[in-house]
Amino acid sequence: MAPAENTPSSAGAPGYDRDAVRAVLDRARAEDRTALTAPEGRALAEAYGIPVPGEALAASADEAVSAAVELGLPVAAKIVSPDILHKTDAGGVAIGLDSPQAVREAYERVVANARAHDPGARIDGVQIQRMVGGGTEVLVGATTDPTFGKIVVFGLGGVLVEVLKDVSFRLAPVTREEALEQVGAIRAAEVLDGVRGGEAVDRGALADLLVRLSALVTDFPEIAEADLNPVFASAGGAIAADLRFVLDFAPAPGPKRFEREEILAAMRRIFRPRSIAVIGASNEAGKIGNSVIRNIVDGGYEGEVYPVNPKADEVYGRTAYRSIADVPGEVDVAVFAIPAKFVAGALEEVGAKGAAGAVLIPSGFAETGEQELQDEVLAVARKHGVRLLGPNIYGYYYTPQKLSATFCTPYDVAGGTALTSQSGGIGMAILGYSRSTRTGVSAIVGVGNKADIDEDDLLTFFGQDDNTDAIAMHLEDLKDGRAFVEAAREVVPRKPVVVLKAGRTSAGARAAGSHTGALAGDDKVYDDILRQAGVVRAPGLSELLEYGRALPVLPAPAGENVVIITGAGGSGVLLSDAVVDNGMSLMEIPPDLDEAFRAFIPPFGAAGNPVDITGGEPPSTYEKTIRLGLEDPRVHALILGYWHTIVTPPMVFAELVADVVEQARAAGIDKPVVASLSGDTEVEAASAHLFEHGVVAYPYTTERPVQVLGAKYRWARAAGLL
Amino acid sequence: MAPAENTPSSAGAPGYDRDAVRAVLDRARAEDRTALTAPEGRALAEAYGIPVPGEALAASADEAVSAAVELGLPVAAKIVSPDILHKTDAGGVAIGLDSPQAVREAYERVVANARAHDPGARIDGVQIQRMVGGGTEVLVGATTDPTFGKIVVFGLGGVLVEVLKDVSFRLAPVTREEALEQVGAIRAAEVLDGVRGGEAVDRGALADLLVRLSALVTDFPEIAEADLNPVFASAGGAIAADLRFVLDFAPAPGPKRFEREEILAAMRRIFRPRSIAVIGASNEAGKIGNSVIRNIVDGGYEGEVYPVNPKADEVYGRTAYRSIADVPGEVDVAVFAIPAKFVAGALEEVGAKGAAGAVLIPSGFAETGEQELQDEVLAVARKHGVRLLGPNIYGYYYTPQKLSATFCTPYDVAGGTALTSQSGGIGMAILGYSRSTRTGVSAIVGVGNKADIDEDDLLTFFGQDDNTDAIAMHLEDLKDGRAFVEAAREVVPRKPVVVLKAGRTSAGARAAGSHTGALAGDDKVYDDILRQAGVVRAPGLSELLEYGRALPVLPAPAGENVVIITGAGGSGVLLSDAVVDNGMSLMEIPPDLDEAFRAFIPPFGAAGNPVDITGGEPPSTYEKTIRLGLEDPRVHALILGYWHTIVTPPMVFAELVADVVEQARAAGIDKPVVASLSGDTEVEAASAHLFEHGVVAYPYTTERPVQVLGAKYRWARAAGLL
Repeated sequence: MAPAENTPSSAGAPGYDRDAVRAVLDRARAEDRTALTAPEGRALAEAYGIPVPGEALAASADEAVSAAVELGLPVAAKIVSPDILHKTDAGGVAIGLDSPQAVREAYERVVANARAHDPGARIDGVQIQRMVGGGTEVLVGATTDPTFGKIVVFGLGGVLVEVLKDVSFRLAPVTREEALEQVGAIRAAEVLDGVRGGEAVDRGALADLLVRLSALVTDFPEIAEADLNPVFASAGGAIAADLRFVLDFAPAPGPKRFEREEILAAMRRIFRPRSIAVIGASNEAGKIGNSVIRNIVDGGYEGEVYPVNPKADEVYGRTAYRSIADVPGEVDVAVFAIPAKFVAGALEEVGAKGAAGAVLIPSGFAETGEQELQDEVLAVARKHGVRLLGPNIYGYYYTPQKLSATFCTPYDVAGGTALTSQSGGIGMAILGYSRSTRTGVSAIVGVGNKADIDEDDLLTFFGQDDNTDAIAMHLEDLKDGRAFVEAAREVVPRKPVVVLKAGRTSAGARAAGSHTGALAGDDKVYDDILRQAGVVRAPGLSELLEYGRALPVLPAPAGENVVIITGAGGSGVLLSDAVVDNGMSLMEIPPDLDEAFRAFIPPFGAAGNPVDITGGEPPSTYEKTIRLGLEDPRVHALILGYWHTIVTPPMVFAELVADVVEQARAAGIDKPVVASLSGDTEVEAASAHLFEHGVVAYPYTTERPVQVLGAKYRWARAAGLL
Repeated sequence: MAPAENTPSSAGAPGYDRDAVRAVLDRARAEDRTALTAPEGRALAEAYGIPVPGEALAASADEAVSAAVELGLPVAAKIVSPDILHKTDAGGVAIGLDSPQAVREAYERVVANARAHDPGARIDGVQIQRMVGGGTEVLVGATTDPTFGKIVVFGLGGVLVEVLKDVSFRLAPVTREEALEQVGAIRAAEVLDGVRGGEAVDRGALADLLVRLSALVTDFPEIAEADLNPVFASAGGAIAADLRFVLDFAPAPGPKRFEREEILAAMRRIFRPRSIAVIGASNEAGKIGNSVIRNIVDGGYEGEVYPVNPKADEVYGRTAYRSIADVPGEVDVAVFAIPAKFVAGALEEVGAKGAAGAVLIPSGFAETGEQELQDEVLAVARKHGVRLLGPNIYGYYYTPQKLSATFCTPYDVAGGTALTSQSGGIGMAILGYSRSTRTGVSAIVGVGNKADIDEDDLLTFFGQDDNTDAIAMHLEDLKDGRAFVEAAREVVPRKPVVVLKAGRTSAGARAAGSHTGALAGDDKVYDDILRQAGVVRAPGLSELLEYGRALPVLPAPAGENVVIITGAGGSGVLLSDAVVDNGMSLMEIPPDLDEAFRAFIPPFGAAGNPVDITGGEPPSTYEKTIRLGLEDPRVHALILGYWHTIVTPPMVFAELVADVVEQARAAGIDKPVVASLSGDTEVEAASAHLFEHGVVAYPYTTERPVQVLGAKYRWARAAGLL
């Protein structure tokens, strides 16, 4: 088998015969067909080096017999007709033909059946195919996902795919490395290594098939679907026993793409505007146009603020203008607080003024069925080169500029987390949670209907924004999944990207459908491809908020060795469960380190991992063991379990841990440390103290600290740090 | 096929030939064997009506041939020898014999192989067995679990069992109903209904096999393991093609069992003591004996309190006694606050005094390796009929008696939840969380090393305790899983039992092992059998605490129709996801009800389910739609999604919901209502207000309210209310 390609795009890749494929597809297009015949499919496979069983096209029973003898029995006989897609239904397939006589009879029979099935069908002959089998039956396929475009799928044949849906998806094209990972990502991957006495299959050969098929559908976007099913995999390789291709010569156009520099130029003006106009600014309390200007001014924004209101001379103490055209200086951003029906008109003026961004707070567009109105507004924006945020949003915050362009309330705890939400309700939860937990925030952004600016634009900006250390996004759909993945791949090596994808379940997706008209993709596709892009997926809103809050607080781990140090054995057990649940594993403590821990703990305490220092210990035992864990270079992350006692009260514990961690950091040792505090209500203040000192700590839960550490690890692995 | 038995015990069940089984087992015992030969296994199967393929024992090649012809070809030939357990390894098996000549040759071959394998083996002949096959291959088995005793297992043969561990366990014996449920409980159960053109198998026949096998191992405890593997299941029935039995005539004795009335008599005196002695009561601050008496007195306990201290005349203002023997009145409970080594001696006196319970706070017993000391203490307790709580615990609380017999701090928010923990650290988390959330608690109990009193004793008491509405237990192991299941089954129809089983993962179980020396059972066994007992399993500590807090607040649902009413469409999507994640489903709203909802919401709002009232609505829209949901008898539970707006501020929402729910309750309508509040920090107080008024509400999370409702549903189904 030829070595697989290792390049993400196959353009000009040796071994791929693009001309042969082009010829087949051109003929199908000329004949207005959306399916390929078996020999055509075979031609595509051969052009891209996908192994297929030996076969020949026979135009007579005699030709069939001699082909069968040459290929080797047993063979299958399949009718070849551009007009018959479902050959089996037409009686056009005979299998297990193990003698020349059987081949002859089968030829006559399938042709007769096909004629009877469709008297007008063009019959090109009968395909005589060597029957392969044995080994392990797998499925390799490609399809065109409405969100992500070309994707490849891998699964084990039969029950595992059909009943348990045990498949893995990846964005096409895949590299060989990605394809190997995809093969191993199915739950029953162990089957590939041989079970019940079976031999292990050649995973490399399967990865090679995925690489080649993904290159084929990438090079020829008109191949809408491809199924290699079954593929017979064995120790000797993999062979595609049946192929099926579906074509689409008129795919729907994708959303408009901007160049990275175009995106950044607009976003920099939007997030760091020198001046903001508020279209519909009002003096009337309770009006959105009043809240918006008040929040911008009261929030401390230091640039120019221009109220635009045809009926007022002054709004909130600032000179008001009839129209944005009257504003004396330049305007970077216009925040719209006027009814939907006036937006397009006002946007013409905003565009003419040269604004970079229009923040469309009003609702009454696509979300209420007014898609046309939204399209009209977008057209105006495109004409003037204005980027739109919204419509149907609460606005946006950017704390480095003390900017609260929103009808909610200002937010001023600056920090490293940028949060975005598709839903206004979720945006309010972001605001409230951030305020309640004093989460350090760089930005909170509503994207609403996403008529224009969407998550990939924001990812591109936050990815290069020095004020942002982590990005957390709530979304119900992606307008352009591929652009999102590209942006995420660029950002993830530098900072974590957390995504809460709502509408995971079919019930949730139905609800999303009624909310935004978004087409909800299959969740497994989202799950696999977001992971492939290195995104940390939050299982729920609570985790989105908490990951957003905590990930920037934790340093990145430098390795996989996690150690639990606990005063409460019971917490140690639960923390151990949580470590496994969150995809980490407990370090096997080397004997010398074990001995070093033992020197600090009572004889009936348990070393090993968890290190159980037992409950009645003084602060010094916590201190010595934690310091040991921090200073030993083989340990990469610490999980602390605290048990409230009189001997070591909660705040004593919190202060000593904060001190030990700070000393280590001063000495250049910066490892992630998380803590679970069990005790009476004083553990709440102790947890808060720890959090403020860079230790992610929670009271009354053994799950949450480990979950956050697990999220940090998932990111660190995706970022290539481990 | 004979109808399956529907009785949990098969004693005297018609169709079970106990004498035949007894004869086989007696012979094996007499011969000191722990395995049965194939004909013996067959005899057991036939005695209990388990279908097996036709077969015969041949003592010569001629007999083999005539048996084969009579049974019908193909047949298998298997050596029969009490000395050869692994027949295949000994070359003692030949399969697929499809001619008389093949049978003859196979007979000679397997006998020769067996002789060569073990020249001393007794050879009873060769079993000639009709080969069955086709249909679906499944596994039916039974084993003896160290925690639960006899259990039965069901799974699909091959990869699904071996790689994906897709099996279901149930406590033996199973009823036919339980067995049917067990068959359907595997993940790939759909396979049984026929996939890829296969026919559906007879699930009743599989259930029947499970019923019969479970009766067999229950009736004959010396059958330690039984494997029917493979069983071939088809539309026509199920047949066990191979059987394997392992015997154990000297099983380890189980823990001591008490009668229900014995348990209750002791527990009532322990939880409602007229008097308490504190052994080791002390005036010295910081000593456990000082904290304990202070907490009992300051907590408001109204019975007699007797300090026992040989060196003091008075402790905390009460007359102290040298020995409990000197105490003038009766003593129901003695709380021990003395070092481990003095416990046995003091317990002799406590026993002589006639106390019902000894609460052993001290550590230094089995958890530090001092198993013998613990056994000695238990022996003293048994001699006097004193029940022990602990050792190695924080004590216990029982709020109806204002009893805080602990070295922690008193707790006085009386309510319906009884909480227990095996670990002291977890106990402290229970105390702190309860205090912080003002959880209404009936009891908090530490069980520690469980030398005597364990979860089933406490379940038995709380089950009949009118002050307790829900029971939440943290445990690392069960001393007697079967007693726990029996107690749980008795309690669950009246009140929810929530269990956090720590040590779910192998890492967690290892940690548990080092903590308590507990043998951690396979988690899947725990999971299946706790569910079979109707227990609601909490996935983590957070959920244990929250289910304990919230379940008594919610009324039980009367049906499965869940409706989401939301102001935030984005919350509606996430709440829908959570509904599915938590095993519920959204009601299909009937057209008339849909129309009724639509009458209250804006035209662009979405009816259906979720009912999306949209974000800018006034309080009256929430009120009308929620009232409609409560009053329509087809709706059984409501999930509310609130979105903070100026029009309907958080506390306005909270008060209106509390009012509407209260009015409905006054009118006799009591449905569970949960709420997710998205908004600025005022939603925290609003959530608290709702909680206090019987609506389980949380800020900033769409997951938690639905998770709690899901737990309530799981209980209601287990209790037979739905």
